[in-house]
Amino acid sequence: MTIKHNSRDKKYKDPYGAVPCMTRVRLSFDINDSDCDLWSLPLYLRWESGYSKDEISLMPMEVAGNFVTYYLAEDYLSRPGTYYYYINGFCEKQLTVYRQDLDIPEWFYDAIIYQIFPDRFFRGNGSVFFKKDSFIYATWEDMPMYIRNEDNEIVRWDFYGGNLWGVAQKLEYIKALGANVIYLNPIFKAVSNHRYDTCDYTKVDEVLGGEEAFSYLLSQAQNEKIGIMLDGVFSHTGSDSIYFDMYNKYGNGAYHNEDSPYRSWYRFKEDGTYECWWDIAAVPNVNELEPSYLDFIVRNDNSVIKTRGRQGICGWRLDVADELPSEFLRELRAAVSDNQIVLGEVWEDASNKVSYGARRTYFTEKELHTVTNYVFHDNLLSFLKGEKSGGNLTEVFELLKENVPKHNFYALVNMTGTHDIKRLATECNCKSMVKAFTMVMFTFPGIPLIYYGDETLLEGSTDPDNRRPMPWNNLDESSVKWFSDMACLRRSDSVYTKGEISFVDMKDDDIFAYKRTLDEKEIMVIIDRKHRGIEYFDKKVYSVLADADGWGYVLERI
Amino acid sequence: MTIKHNSRDKKYKDPYGAVPCMTRVRLSFDINDSDCDLWSLPLYLRWESGYSKDEISLMPMEVAGNFVTYYLAEDYLSRPGTYYYYINGFCEKQLTVYRQDLDIPEWFYDAIIYQIFPDRFFRGNGSVFFKKDSFIYATWEDMPMYIRNEDNEIVRWDFYGGNLWGVAQKLEYIKALGANVIYLNPIFKAVSNHRYDTCDYTKVDEVLGGEEAFSYLLSQAQNEKIGIMLDGVFSHTGSDSIYFDMYNKYGNGAYHNEDSPYRSWYRFKEDGTYECWWDIAAVPNVNELEPSYLDFIVRNDNSVIKTRGRQGICGWRLDVADELPSEFLRELRAAVSDNQIVLGEVWEDASNKVSYGARRTYFTEKELHTVTNYVFHDNLLSFLKGEKSGGNLTEVFELLKENVPKHNFYALVNMTGTHDIKRLATECNCKSMVKAFTMVMFTFPGIPLIYYGDETLLEGSTDPDNRRPMPWNNLDESSVKWFSDMACLRRSDSVYTKGEISFVDMKDDDIFAYKRTLDEKEIMVIIDRKHRGIEYFDKKVYSVLADADGWGYVLERI
Repeated sequence: MTIKHNSRDKKYKDPYGAVPCMTRVRLSFDINDSDCDLWSLPLYLRWESGYSKDEISLMPMEVAGNFVTYYLAEDYLSRPGTYYYYINGFCEKQLTVYRQDLDIPEWFYDAIIYQIFPDRFFRGNGSVFFKKDSFIYATWEDMPMYIRNEDNEIVRWDFYGGNLWGVAQKLEYIKALGANVIYLNPIFKAVSNHRYDTCDYTKVDEVLGGEEAFSYLLSQAQNEKIGIMLDGVFSHTGSDSIYFDMYNKYGNGAYHNEDSPYRSWYRFKEDGTYECWWDIAAVPNVNELEPSYLDFIVRNDNSVIKTRGRQGICGWRLDVADELPSEFLRELRAAVSDNQIVLGEVWEDASNKVSYGARRTYFTEKELHTVTNYVFHDNLLSFLKGEKSGGNLTEVFELLKENVPKHNFYALVNMTGTHDIKRLATECNCKSMVKAFTMVMFTFPGIPLIYYGDETLLEGSTDPDNRRPMPWNNLDESSVKWFSDMACLRRSDSVYTKGEISFVDMKDDDIFAYKRTLDEKEIMVIIDRKHRGIEYFDKKVYSVLADADGWGYVLERI
Repeated sequence: MTIKHNSRDKKYKDPYGAVPCMTRVRLSFDINDSDCDLWSLPLYLRWESGYSKDEISLMPMEVAGNFVTYYLAEDYLSRPGTYYYYINGFCEKQLTVYRQDLDIPEWFYDAIIYQIFPDRFFRGNGSVFFKKDSFIYATWEDMPMYIRNEDNEIVRWDFYGGNLWGVAQKLEYIKALGANVIYLNPIFKAVSNHRYDTCDYTKVDEVLGGEEAFSYLLSQAQNEKIGIMLDGVFSHTGSDSIYFDMYNKYGNGAYHNEDSPYRSWYRFKEDGTYECWWDIAAVPNVNELEPSYLDFIVRNDNSVIKTRGRQGICGWRLDVADELPSEFLRELRAAVSDNQIVLGEVWEDASNKVSYGARRTYFTEKELHTVTNYVFHDNLLSFLKGEKSGGNLTEVFELLKENVPKHNFYALVNMTGTHDIKRLATECNCKSMVKAFTMVMFTFPGIPLIYYGDETLLEGSTDPDNRRPMPWNNLDESSVKWFSDMACLRRSDSVYTKGEISFVDMKDDDIFAYKRTLDEKEIMVIIDRKHRGIEYFDKKVYSVLADADGWGYVLERI
């Protein structure tokens, strides 16, 4: 038996891509099997959501020669989830079915995000405070390193002393770059320089300038129409926190005190040890669904989420979203205002992610608006570096486009980099490759995110090298200009944010191309990793809007 | 055969102790051996100096019953050196014979030294400069630590940021404490915080405030009649120096350049490696006797020694004196002015020290005025801690007094501690033990040296813990007062600096006692480690000048 089914072709599947619940979906197959009674060939439809699974089979509604058609009646897709359909064990395909009432705050489609690791961006003029038993880099130009003992444990934290006063002082720079959202790595009180080991969720770290600096930054940013997105670290706290209090500094913490109000937040074992994130003792995991924790973080009127929400932030990036239970995400999403974004840290296709045995429902239920699109970052880079053909890259993006609900797909966060991976300039062999990467990022569906410093080609291998201080005294002006030109281009027409995308097969492994169309507008983007400078296009038909040194072109149909 | 000979008794040896060359010395022995013809019993006299040895034998000049007397005629002691005499392989005794023209600058007998590790003392108000790729402690209260990699190598240096401006600002404090000499750990440009890895001998480290801060400190100290003693580190340089230049930062350094003017300073091996101090690659050893090195450090008119000498320092502490050749020491001593002190870092009795197979001639030739008296420090502490009896301690001091030329003995530097050993407050079980220790230090022949912070009972184990920052915000006022009171007592009468010392046998292992006498003045010091508060003395005869909480008394004969 051979089965032909192209889920991207309306002839075989209608409607295209992910669908809301209660959509009627037609599925057709070309089946070549003379021995088989096609009328009795079942289609299997499996539903997965969280830890639940269910499967039904249904019979064809039409058979015309080899062409067999099934109809998934509205009722079949009444439950949100990730569905898979297949015939005879062949040809399994994903069908994403999402709640009907989901959408994205409209403003977000126009976002360009600038990510800042606060300790490393700029030290502003406000008063400077440093934590006892930490080390300060002697100069802003020093290279970052961890300070470890012989057991490889971090024994003291290293700081450059960037702070929120500094971010406020650099708003003009960020605005000129074209960004209108600043995503700040964690800012709440913590021991480390990255602050993923929260000590107190209710306080902006004094080292960053405290609440005063944060309020100032927020008001200055609002004046400039720049949103501030915070990093929510809710899967674990620090061990050195007012909640866990391993070192008995605050009193009443869970570690030393069975009657602590925070005791139930953590999972203590009989032998006195406790569960922690990735076995790192400094970050004990929390029971996110423990009512007192949920109240504190999410539900209460003065919860962390609601307090900062009212203060005027534009959204949250949720650290390790894969480790947060769905119920927690749903409660959180319900607690943010309609105008705020919930961005999850997810490293794979979020539409079919499985974590800890559960099929996640980030986009099918009311959980995340968007995720970090490492799929975009990693695969585009692979193509540019010659590790993957243009055709393979197209296939990756086709699949993502099909799997992810459209309103989410257009909101995926496409990053130049993050604090967790090698720097773009270090991944790329040359400046032109960076240009080609960002040419795609700025003209692709999804929200561009510039990891601070990537715009000036800051180098850096993995952590901690990817967290070097922003080289204010040595900016690559031409590169910064390229980034701001690209941001400008993106803002020049809504074809870049809203236009349909269709991939173009140029029959060349070294080329990746796509068109964006909206109303009468048509843009073509061609990336040639061989940067041959060949003429891909008829100059009577297209005019050049941007040229990445021959590595890529943005073309507009005249 | 039994031989009786008490070298401290004029009946047996005259004159007492070390003698200048060309002294006639009488040696007598009680010999109980009926079979022996005493007239034909030879005395052997061995001379040792550097790598040379010589031995003669001589016959008795007088025999009266068992009492045999030899005379070492002037000629026998014509050469400076450490002599040993013995009979029949028994009863070997040291006789130190020193050049006749040696003495100590008179002012030094009145010195009380305050040793400062500059990075850890005080950060003054002058401009602050930090070296790239080093770490600054976040607060002055942080605990010191080394920053090492997995191979246990120091990868970045840690600084508190104390500087010479800071020392200048604290002169009043130092003066109030009673000190009139400040010994500074190295101040010349170097990479580390201790600066024993010199980068440039001609420059005061910018991190300390540079030449400007040093000149200022010097002039302010002169106004206060406080001398400044520098640390001379001449056995090795840093690998990261303008001379060796391992990292090719300066050009023309010895490591990368066979034609470097500094090439001959170092000992390169055929395999490209080089000799270094204690196998620490960061501190390559120098050939101290290489003419261009000697010129640079010592001989030239603008040598390091002469330049700083003219600038007005009061002397040098020579790092690892045991590793400096005698010739180098003699050249150096010849290059300092008559008023300047040369203090060698020596850990044992300097009168008979052997290093690298050579009998050192620190005190017998014109080399060192004095050394660090670790013998005093370690043995006194041992007694106080109950590890050694008062009698044994007395024996140690008797021997030292006998071996060391008197003018040197009265100039030995008796320290509370140094940057190389555990802090006094950490060695001692209690504050009163510290008082007892310092009561001896301030009333003993030799120059008291207070290692910064010891006066306020700063704790600290071995390096780097013994280099904690001076706790200005948490001074132990009563302890500081004790130190300044003791300094005051020492200054109150020259019996403490010049008085004869005689040890008193109290027939009690837990007691150590001695008298100091000068003209009509008699002081007795009694230390009782059992602090029993018993009455050792007749109150009609003695009045109490100081009381270390019952652990010790300074008494004056009425």
